[in-house]
Amino acid sequence: MRFTSEQRLDDGVLEREFTLGEIPGTLWTPESAVPAPLILMAHNNGLPKREPRLVARARHSAAHGYAVATIDAAGCGDRPRSAADEQARADLRRAMQAGEPVDEIFESFVGPLVEKAVPEWRTTLDALLSLPGIDGPVGYSGWTALGIRLAVSEPRIKAAGFFAGGYVPRAQREEARQVTIPLLFLLQWDDEGNPRQRALDLFDAFGTKEKTLHANMGGHLGTPWFEREDGDRFFGRHLK
Amino acid sequence: MRFTSEQRLDDGVLEREFTLGEIPGTLWTPESAVPAPLILMAHNNGLPKREPRLVARARHSAAHGYAVATIDAAGCGDRPRSAADEQARADLRRAMQAGEPVDEIFESFVGPLVEKAVPEWRTTLDALLSLPGIDGPVGYSGWTALGIRLAVSEPRIKAAGFFAGGYVPRAQREEARQVTIPLLFLLQWDDEGNPRQRALDLFDAFGTKEKTLHANMGGHLGTPWFEREDGDRFFGRHLK
Repeated sequence: MRFTSEQRLDDGVLEREFTLGEIPGTLWTPESAVPAPLILMAHNNGLPKREPRLVARARHSAAHGYAVATIDAAGCGDRPRSAADEQARADLRRAMQAGEPVDEIFESFVGPLVEKAVPEWRTTLDALLSLPGIDGPVGYSGWTALGIRLAVSEPRIKAAGFFAGGYVPRAQREEARQVTIPLLFLLQWDDEGNPRQRALDLFDAFGTKEKTLHANMGGHLGTPWFEREDGDRFFGRHLK
Repeated sequence: MRFTSEQRLDDGVLEREFTLGEIPGTLWTPESAVPAPLILMAHNNGLPKREPRLVARARHSAAHGYAVATIDAAGCGDRPRSAADEQARADLRRAMQAGEPVDEIFESFVGPLVEKAVPEWRTTLDALLSLPGIDGPVGYSGWTALGIRLAVSEPRIKAAGFFAGGYVPRAQREEARQVTIPLLFLLQWDDEGNPRQRALDLFDAFGTKEKTLHANMGGHLGTPWFEREDGDRFFGRHLK
């Protein structure tokens, strides 16, 4: 893991860009609280790690005592996409504009995206936990489909907060029953592109006994600010 | 309002029994924080104010800076019941044991119970707000059907936390659209006697824009301890 830049933010949080082989990442660490529990944070559908909403969430959690890391996994964010992925995304835009069904298009590229992302997140986790000042247990926050796959395959992850607003491939919907770590599942009640009933069915399917659903009014981008604090408290119960 | 007994609890909370005409009530006030915002707390279906879960919630909120009050309204708790109410409750027990539908029986006695309770809660609110050390704005917590009726008819109530586990008469399900104050709606995902879909439909129906659903695993009595703290924070955002 090679750090390529760093800046100290107003609240004392250290924000560092890194590369790990081909993987670009960002690590936020709090000023105090050594060793800090680690939260892996990812955007639904492989959106870029530099996306302002993810950065704001990461900085907030780091200011509250967590080390937070994100990467652009293969095919995600600013990483190169395969010709097939480019084609799928073009098909998706066209279908959305035409009001046509999009499930099969999402399935065709989110499924492989998750499969390719998982080993890179695990490699990153190995490297992060070898750094001074970062310790387990590990939490996960954000992209539901990736989080299900990681929660099932990576025993170091002890608690997860999932955002319901994103396509979950059939394979991960089936794997949901094998997830047994504590979960906080965040749903926007009128998320434009994500059917409410499908999210409620997924919440029902998770195998864990200790799962909580938080649903708020409004569309995909309308999550209220206090859910950030609720997320920190959830991780506080399980990681600290 | 006449105080009939008082005790000082370990955390400094003052717990006082009172009567207001025929109405028996309990008031919890915090040691510090004068004037304290007021929370009216009621159990679904008119369960007694002395019930340990309600008392524990009230003491918790009082220890966190709220004045909390509850009453046994007409026909509720330890107050005398009409012959019709006694009959309805006997019918209910019989129907539940036989596994027969209970909606119409609930409708026959919860509807009138709410109607009779509302004026007594409003009278109590008048008396409470005239006490030194208690101030608005006012919150409401607990019994959903009564809370809907109060939220629609009592403009001094500014925020409400409802527990989904209780029968809501048709009249209040229709009135839900007129509720516009901020809401926290607490659902037990596998509540034995209360259909999940009906609770989700009610959450959807509330007219307010600022409503949050918290759903947790388990049956009617399984609400996890951290929801008490979440409730205090919800009221903290709206009453403090």
